[in-house]
Amino acid sequence: MKTLPMINNISKPKFNLASREHQGEDTIINVKGVKIGGDHMTIIAGPCAIENEYQMITTAKAVKAAGATMLRGGAYKPRTSPYSFQGLEEEGLKLLKQAGDITNLPTVSEVISTETFDIVEAYVDILQIGTRNMQNFPLLKRAGQSKKPILLKRGMAATIEELLMAAEYIMSEGNHQVILCERGIRTFETYTRNTLDLSAVLAVRKLSHLPIIVDPSHATGQHDMIEPLSKASIITGAHGLMIEVHYQPEIALCDGPQSLKTDDFHHLMRELFFLHDHHLQLKRQIRD
Amino acid sequence: MKTLPMINNISKPKFNLASREHQGEDTIINVKGVKIGGDHMTIIAGPCAIENEYQMITTAKAVKAAGATMLRGGAYKPRTSPYSFQGLEEEGLKLLKQAGDITNLPTVSEVISTETFDIVEAYVDILQIGTRNMQNFPLLKRAGQSKKPILLKRGMAATIEELLMAAEYIMSEGNHQVILCERGIRTFETYTRNTLDLSAVLAVRKLSHLPIIVDPSHATGQHDMIEPLSKASIITGAHGLMIEVHYQPEIALCDGPQSLKTDDFHHLMRELFFLHDHHLQLKRQIRD
Amino acid sequence: MKTLPMINNISKPKFNLASREHQGEDTIINVKGVKIGGDHMTIIAGPCAIENEYQMITTAKAVKAAGATMLRGGAYKPRTSPYSFQGLEEEGLKLLKQAGDITNLPTVSEVISTETFDIVEAYVDILQIGTRNMQNFPLLKRAGQSKKPILLKRGMAATIEELLMAAEYIMSEGNHQVILCERGIRTFETYTRNTLDLSAVLAVRKLSHLPIIVDPSHATGQHDMIEPLSKASIITGAHGLMIEVHYQPEIALCDGPQSLKTDDFHHLMRELFFLHDHHLQLKRQIRD
Amino acid sequence: MKTLPMINNISKPKFNLASREHQGEDTIINVKGVKIGGDHMTIIAGPCAIENEYQMITTAKAVKAAGATMLRGGAYKPRTSPYSFQGLEEEGLKLLKQAGDITNLPTVSEVISTETFDIVEAYVDILQIGTRNMQNFPLLKRAGQSKKPILLKRGMAATIEELLMAAEYIMSEGNHQVILCERGIRTFETYTRNTLDLSAVLAVRKLSHLPIIVDPSHATGQHDMIEPLSKASIITGAHGLMIEVHYQPEIALCDGPQSLKTDDFHHLMRELFFLHDHHLQLKRQIRD
Repeated sequence: MKTLPMINNISKPKFNLASREHQGEDTIINVKGVKIGGDHMTIIAGPCAIENEYQMITTAKAVKAAGATMLRGGAYKPRTSPYSFQGLEEEGLKLLKQAGDITNLPTVSEVISTETFDIVEAYVDILQIGTRNMQNFPLLKRAGQSKKPILLKRGMAATIEELLMAAEYIMSEGNHQVILCERGIRTFETYTRNTLDLSAVLAVRKLSHLPIIVDPSHATGQHDMIEPLSKASIITGAHGLMIEVHYQPEIALCDGPQSLKTDDFHHLMRELFFLHDHHLQLKRQIRD
Repeated sequence: MKTLPMINNISKPKFNLASREHQGEDTIINVKGVKIGGDHMTIIAGPCAIENEYQMITTAKAVKAAGATMLRGGAYKPRTSPYSFQGLEEEGLKLLKQAGDITNLPTVSEVISTETFDIVEAYVDILQIGTRNMQNFPLLKRAGQSKKPILLKRGMAATIEELLMAAEYIMSEGNHQVILCERGIRTFETYTRNTLDLSAVLAVRKLSHLPIIVDPSHATGQHDMIEPLSKASIITGAHGLMIEVHYQPEIALCDGPQSLKTDDFHHLMRELFFLHDHHLQLKRQIRD
Repeated sequence: MKTLPMINNISKPKFNLASREHQGEDTIINVKGVKIGGDHMTIIAGPCAIENEYQMITTAKAVKAAGATMLRGGAYKPRTSPYSFQGLEEEGLKLLKQAGDITNLPTVSEVISTETFDIVEAYVDILQIGTRNMQNFPLLKRAGQSKKPILLKRGMAATIEELLMAAEYIMSEGNHQVILCERGIRTFETYTRNTLDLSAVLAVRKLSHLPIIVDPSHATGQHDMIEPLSKASIITGAHGLMIEVHYQPEIALCDGPQSLKTDDFHHLMRELFFLHDHHLQLKRQIRD
Repeated sequence: MKTLPMINNISKPKFNLASREHQGEDTIINVKGVKIGGDHMTIIAGPCAIENEYQMITTAKAVKAAGATMLRGGAYKPRTSPYSFQGLEEEGLKLLKQAGDITNLPTVSEVISTETFDIVEAYVDILQIGTRNMQNFPLLKRAGQSKKPILLKRGMAATIEELLMAAEYIMSEGNHQVILCERGIRTFETYTRNTLDLSAVLAVRKLSHLPIIVDPSHATGQHDMIEPLSKASIITGAHGLMIEVHYQPEIALCDGPQSLKTDDFHHLMRELFFLHDHHLQLKRQIRD
């Protein structure tokens, strides 16, 4: 009787620092008083791309009022086409910082190269490494030398194991403040932009002590799927969410169809607080 | 400037009877007083395979006590290997019927051929068409001639559109009592058995009036993922769940590693009732 | 250091009768004097669907003249939509038989249910089980009781191992005349209808003694890819090809865009004979 | 009747400079007298990673003797684990240059960051951008400012269109010397490391004037699949191949199981010359 070996697994990678075996307790990261991981729920919201002062400040105030705990905004945009809007770069970072100062929210923005790492690091509180760079190893190593937390998104065709190996790259350079992010994987399905893999949240919580959040905006590409999948993520055990919000999605320069309006975000936040409280109560009952 | 056409979509299929355009109101199916669809939550539970009287009755009583609204059990098992246990066939159906009678629960069992359709139809209340038969068109047509509801599972590599086209096959033969079931799709990820696609639930609710439930057991293949993903499914808007429960998973003849213990199922049910109530309250608030 | 187990492989299936360990020598199947397997090259050609006498006979004569060794034509068509042309059924089988008799070519046609197995078996020389039925186990078992060879196509999301397990189903019932067929798998790529997996041909030749052919028509869905991929298949070691040919693809009722014109098929055949001869010469050199 | 739109295609990217519409004639790149593209066959061979002088020089001489037209060797290695061998870096580049000088073969090596671009550019004749960096846009832009040709590998989950968009990034910065490389895509199949997509070669030749070669080593991960798939690639119309060759694969520091022995490579080269000649003859017959 014959069983096939899995040839593509001959040389399986291994992770150590990121594993539960290495550290049993959940990692909790503190950014200007906002805690990520463990029993804390982190909601990162803001526009896909920073477009101008009015857009950034208006959206920032709205998400703050709704209860978001961090502010996002893209200044360096990785775009499939060289002819698409590539972001405001340093000008955008300044606007994000300004919006963060006004609202007293820590900020998150994507860094897409080692060359621009210093400048992004200077302006923001958490540096995001995007899905296309999950295996950009020089960038991971540079992130490992930073003193600031890194938000590492799963590659669109990366296994859970490869995601944890990418975290290991950052940690092996000395930076243990890594937040993972499930953002949908590429499958044969064409109705949604990607396929959200919520079981990855459970797998990461079992295998690793690192916090993991979910990005429902990129996972689906559809604004009307964000609310239900955000709630599903929190109930599943995600440590938080990253959600694209725009004060007027119809005029967004980037990803308008998957952006939430500020009113809808406000409504969603109330739900998330309720579900997260319920989730924690239940967890405590089980512990006792 | 050049944009590629999608060659694999040249002859796009179309669905009509299954569409929201055709029928705006949710379809609600009534099986011996148990309602499926709309605001009702249907929980189908029971063993993967029916093994013997003790196992079937014990498990049936336990899931009934916990609050399940329907009873499942496999009598004809589609197995990858011809040398694996293929099910008790009619003997199994008798045990399922007996268990259904004792617990007063409607029953669901899989039918794998037109030849055995009549016999399964005679014993059970809902006939399941499994993932490997989602495009077994003669079987779909036979199901379309039945007076009993059909539980149609998504093919492991079927698009949402193909799932709805398969429902259309059944409906076009006259049987409009179709319940859809998301059970995970095949992706590159090897950590879970399949990848649960919760966005499919949202897509189906938008595109169709048919009820859609979720099978978290086959989606993940891991018993400790069932509770969180069941809750996530209900919060996302699924009309119910199908869950494999065994009174003693360690000795199950089939799918033991993904079966829930009866105690864990009991605990889960309380949570599901709570979340479903919350979901409905919220829906009513929005309506008002 | 941690390496993830592959949960989705816990209960790996096993094949025996289909394995090289069980039988070292290539299986060679003889259908009315036409040999399939080993050093023989089998070219099965004909229309996707049988439409009428003129179309069937005209195409049959043309593919015979070009050097095809078998004739194909669909009488029972598995279609994604219930509203698409479903085939001429028995009427089509009669036309196929007539065309086979005129051209003295053995015939191949798809069987889609156990109920219609007998009738297809009565008219054709080889029965095809299509991609959507690769795990239709009752159909596989019925095929295993036939005296005629079975052409088994790989499921669109089936692993190589599952393909061999499906062959094992047929063989375990007593029919060892199984011809496998790689026809493209479903991936994220949308430019082609499927993605042709030529490494599957190599894997099957290593793991099994059964012949394996390639269907480039369904693999790509594009007529201008058929010639190069047919040649590539023969050079890779496939035992033959199944190609959709239509005397006038523009008016085909099914799969016109992926059908070859008879002239182009004629040109292709000359190339295939040359490459196959070359392939054999080389093999003999290595043996000596 | 309802047909689903493809949501994940809302904002389709576009390519221009890379398109056949923009330039009808095949691009032919000249590197130290070796031509790539059009009717030329380019065979790039050498070790996965440069390990030491003896290994590099021995392998270089062997592949030269066999007929390779270019020499490859990795000095900066992108590895899934931070604990795996990461390459000899500049020391490796010196050995590669030395081996190129001795054998009079142009050299190819991977560049993995903008920071190390200058140093790789100084030593090698063609710079490779690997599968994990296909959408590393800062790296693509830097490559676009180079005077040397760029070998751009397809991302493991990149569509054909995204590959051409990545080439467009390089070209839009001024460097029109881009060679594309199909190296297998990630699918559900676990028997091979990736799934080689030969239809991508045909698609690229139709859509673009840029040369495209195939890497069968990474596509399959299995040394015994390299010969047949190399031949299949040339017959399909690929402009060449990149093959991992090691003088002693058993002791390779990286990718030993998918490396060809020098003897086997020698044998393969004779076959490739024969098939390429045949391919060209045929092409000329069709033209005349």
